[in-house]
Amino acid sequence: MSKQAFLIDIDGVLYVGDSPVPGAADAISDLKKKGYNIRFLSNTTRKSRKTIVARLTGMGFDIGPGEIFTPAVAAISFIKKAGISGVHLLTTGDVDKEFAEAGIYSCSDGVDAVIVGDAGDNFSYERMNGAFRFLLEGAGLIALEKDRYWMAGDGMMLSAGPFVSALEYATGKTAAIMGKPSKTFFELALDSMGVGASDTAMVGDDIMTDIGGSISCGIDGILVRTGKFRPETLQAAEVKPTAVIRSVAHLETIL
Amino acid sequence: MSKQAFLIDIDGVLYVGDSPVPGAADAISDLKKKGYNIRFLSNTTRKSRKTIVARLTGMGFDIGPGEIFTPAVAAISFIKKAGISGVHLLTTGDVDKEFAEAGIYSCSDGVDAVIVGDAGDNFSYERMNGAFRFLLEGAGLIALEKDRYWMAGDGMMLSAGPFVSALEYATGKTAAIMGKPSKTFFELALDSMGVGASDTAMVGDDIMTDIGGSISCGIDGILVRTGKFRPETLQAAEVKPTAVIRSVAHLETIL
Repeated sequence: MSKQAFLIDIDGVLYVGDSPVPGAADAISDLKKKGYNIRFLSNTTRKSRKTIVARLTGMGFDIGPGEIFTPAVAAISFIKKAGISGVHLLTTGDVDKEFAEAGIYSCSDGVDAVIVGDAGDNFSYERMNGAFRFLLEGAGLIALEKDRYWMAGDGMMLSAGPFVSALEYATGKTAAIMGKPSKTFFELALDSMGVGASDTAMVGDDIMTDIGGSISCGIDGILVRTGKFRPETLQAAEVKPTAVIRSVAHLETIL
Repeated sequence: MSKQAFLIDIDGVLYVGDSPVPGAADAISDLKKKGYNIRFLSNTTRKSRKTIVARLTGMGFDIGPGEIFTPAVAAISFIKKAGISGVHLLTTGDVDKEFAEAGIYSCSDGVDAVIVGDAGDNFSYERMNGAFRFLLEGAGLIALEKDRYWMAGDGMMLSAGPFVSALEYATGKTAAIMGKPSKTFFELALDSMGVGASDTAMVGDDIMTDIGGSISCGIDGILVRTGKFRPETLQAAEVKPTAVIRSVAHLETIL
């Protein structure tokens, strides 16, 4: 496999739970020394790149904010390309800092786009109704992700998807989805490196969103046997990875 | 037209805004004296029948709670037929009193069905997530209505539909819809009178939900030129009413 660039999923590939994958930090350093372009992907819509980097640094990874690619980063690129200036954010966590650093602040006047992330408790009736009214007045709908739910310590939690779906139902509009497995996400990640799909491989632990998503964009998909990898899921999947490796630490063996 | 029973929409047919339709109260009294079975229909999911009756009485109508049919009344009938005992209510207003009078109280243990109405500010993330978890544990989803929005004094407000849609998206379940224009609603209203579709006519001001809904159940649909009636909407509609009358006060002219 001859590639110039990699898209590497973070959660389940660089670390699992609170533990870095053995050898991953060294493998990443080696790839960077050899001049490969890399974007580290996360579908989180609650954290800024700085927060993600702080966690990775604490685990021994030498990765900078400019190498992280999230739905918020994709959204910033998307709205700049579309010439959108007024956005209203329905999000939580410090993802608003990501937008602020790009000069984008949540507003309630002249709203061209409503951006919905996993907003948790901010998904109040009042906030949802406010977003709905902006959409009625002509704003576009941008979803940082459209996941159904996620597993918290005490049980399942609704993610952004159901609330995006609610706003779609109310308005008849279809959200532009920024996160994995949308094509927009992979394409904007390639754009940010200035490389083409055929020169790039995706490394991920999720056969559907990582491997299926990248392959549908013409990007080779390398599945790792860490994180959420399960042999039975691989066997049952219609999607076939370009390669399967033990962990990201073994990526060099197929280059 | 020879009928034994009528389904008569309340809002826009008996009154418009805060004013009773001229002659409506007398026309209703006459129909009742002549022995017609009548159910007065409202799609409200925020009010009990007693509250609706109080308003109608204040406008001069002689109508009792037992003659009112709402999505909550339909839901009570629906869950009793289905043998469902444990329900969780995601509603607002005094509609919970309607359920309480039928011996149904919102619970958080042993939930067989989640019932969602237009819950307004109760559509918090916490309440939505609670409903989601009951559904994951096997509860069915019952929607009192699936309207998109309604017009309040200060602008458009999200109705139950978007939040029902959110829970459907999150769980992959399809809600059983109780309100107009669902077949369930019309059929349970007929059941409550013990009459058949062909013996009944619906009187309404909405060409789609009232007339389209009833005709699709085999119930003749009589459109009134009051409330939300607009000549251009009638002309553009694919649904053709069985008859069009000036107002409910003129119903007798076609019997």
